Amino acid sequence: MRFLMLALLAAAAFAQRAPQPPPVVSPEILADARVTFRLRAPKATEVSLRGEWMAPNTTVPLSKATDGLWSVTVGPIEPELYTYSFLVDGTSTVDPANPLLKEGNRGPSSMVDILGPPVNYFAWRDVPHGTVHVHHYNSQSIHANRRVHVYTPPGYESSKDAYPVLYLLHGSGDTDAEWSTVGRAGMISDNLFMDGRLRPMIIVMPDGHAVKSGDREARARNTELFEADLMGDIIPLVEKTYRVNPGHDSRAIAGLSMGGAQSLNISLRHLDKFAYIGVFSSGIFGSTEAFQKEHAAVLAKGAEWNKQIRLFWVGIGKDDFLLEANKNMLDTLKQAGIQTDFRETPGGHTWKNWRVYLRDFLPRLFRERP
Amino acid sequence: MRFLMLALLAAAAFAQRAPQPPPVVSPEILADARVTFRLRAPKATEVSLRGEWMAPNTTVPLSKATDGLWSVTVGPIEPELYTYSFLVDGTSTVDPANPLLKEGNRGPSSMVDILGPPVNYFAWRDVPHGTVHVHHYNSQSIHANRRVHVYTPPGYESSKDAYPVLYLLHGSGDTDAEWSTVGRAGMISDNLFMDGRLRPMIIVMPDGHAVKSGDREARARNTELFEADLMGDIIPLVEKTYRVNPGHDSRAIAGLSMGGAQSLNISLRHLDKFAYIGVFSSGIFGSTEAFQKEHAAVLAKGAEWNKQIRLFWVGIGKDDFLLEANKNMLDTLKQAGIQTDFRETPGGHTWKNWRVYLRDFLPRLFRERP
Repeated sequence: MRFLMLALLAAAAFAQRAPQPPPVVSPEILADARVTFRLRAPKATEVSLRGEWMAPNTTVPLSKATDGLWSVTVGPIEPELYTYSFLVDGTSTVDPANPLLKEGNRGPSSMVDILGPPVNYFAWRDVPHGTVHVHHYNSQSIHANRRVHVYTPPGYESSKDAYPVLYLLHGSGDTDAEWSTVGRAGMISDNLFMDGRLRPMIIVMPDGHAVKSGDREARARNTELFEADLMGDIIPLVEKTYRVNPGHDSRAIAGLSMGGAQSLNISLRHLDKFAYIGVFSSGIFGSTEAFQKEHAAVLAKGAEWNKQIRLFWVGIGKDDFLLEANKNMLDTLKQAGIQTDFRETPGGHTWKNWRVYLRDFLPRLFRERP
Repeated sequence: MRFLMLALLAAAAFAQRAPQPPPVVSPEILADARVTFRLRAPKATEVSLRGEWMAPNTTVPLSKATDGLWSVTVGPIEPELYTYSFLVDGTSTVDPANPLLKEGNRGPSSMVDILGPPVNYFAWRDVPHGTVHVHHYNSQSIHANRRVHVYTPPGYESSKDAYPVLYLLHGSGDTDAEWSTVGRAGMISDNLFMDGRLRPMIIVMPDGHAVKSGDREARARNTELFEADLMGDIIPLVEKTYRVNPGHDSRAIAGLSMGGAQSLNISLRHLDKFAYIGVFSSGIFGSTEAFQKEHAAVLAKGAEWNKQIRLFWVGIGKDDFLLEANKNMLDTLKQAGIQTDFRETPGGHTWKNWRVYLRDFLPRLFRERP
């Protein structure tokens, strides 16, 4: 009896410690693809929602019920994976009821996953799944504590095979986690592999922010330092740790936005190292003249590289603010005789496009040029 | 020239898209271990800070400068890893300037890492680091899409050895990510290993929330379903995927709070499977009578189990609201003749204690009883 009482007291103490109002359900995806968002915020005077499915810089207000629970129902929304956040009296906050998070380099966002046929290619299926490995390493090249995510395909652990490797770089708003969380690289690869459309490969997702803080001048050295880390530490770590096919023909590099510019500039400086290049919505912030000057040696040899480069894939949305800059970059490569595959898609500078680009790029890797 | 202009236009468009005020630095750890926290929230009327170093349910207000930047300097704070969050007009939000996040099962928190000798045991050191692997799997036992984190020790990938395995369970406020992010299991293990204090081992960190939602009755089945998943899917997945020493002598189970109760109840039902048991600040929400009834068969055989159980380690803080319930559980085991190692420490129901318990528990695993 003493035991029972103490156990009850403990339970009561627990309840007292954490007085819990009924749990908030948010987001709630309704049968017709409308979505209800909810936030408990009794003291707030204004709560609104912004989401990737809405026009940029627009928000919708939430209404407050008597119990301090704010809510709004929006949509129906097109099937897609979207980020969103609440603005509580003007300050951005994630949805505390939703475990789906994009980590982000400038603070986290919540994510809502509206399922449907157009996005089945990255949806969970009951198929064998690859593994994502997180390594912490001390970069000897740039003297920093660093992190890298590595995806291995289904069956890697039980196989003795060696695999080719794609180095896949993120954008300026992301960390090395984002190709897995919001980019769904693993799920896209698992699904393509099950459909027989993919040479199984290892996908290495480094941290593209080699410079974490500091003034403009320090940050301007980011690509240079990232390149030193990639060539001096990351590739050796991967080739030591995993069963990897060595050599140029078994190595690809691709990236989005900031990572697109990195994959472009690094691959042009190391065409002996990467046979497959993917440039997604590249951030090109220098001038075309600077680009031409920087890569003068490669551009001068031009068409000679076409045997070496198995695929030079460039994709960008029609509404992307970087469209013209990317077309100029393509013109420069074309004038030099370098063969590229250019894909102009609907949409803008969004993860929606980058997931599609990855889906279309992966099946073309580690095959001969037709 | 046309190229240059378009590149500049693109850069201008980028700047226009994202008008950036100077980046906020938060938290800023000062030389004397005081810490400045900052949040940009021009429209908020009240911003406060709550942090794990403060008394429960207390907050400190931030002050607003003319530019909408709120700040407060607190401390000095004892070296430790702490979670914290801002309250913006009463609503909890993470620090958007800080990439250190605890994912959490009830919304994320930010973390601040105050370095110093007392916490060197989990701090980054320039030593070889293990790898954390994230698996998505479809549980056949409970018909759910599930995730599990697995740590392998430094040198695993280049070795041919088989390793013993610790199954390490989290608390009710956590996900399977938390033993890595806030629990620092990998760093603790790396450091102990480098100091020659550890048998290298694989640490498996499953998702203890087998029931994600539903009413009280559905949630009451959580341990039962988690146990089915652990025995039917997780252990087989681990033993198929990794080089694992099979058998009872090479398998340990431990957990904190909810996970402490899970490791206690599951190990007592499977003493043929786990030789090492760790119960950290166990959440014991049933009565002692119920506990005695549930494990009557084991308790009846009592001392006979002592050869089988290599270590039965129980730790809890003097200020933990579950102290008495844990002592009653220990009494029950003692009366049955089951040998336990009990450690009562300062402090309460906190990650500060669970990191210390892990540090002290790990070196005792996979060795003979003295």
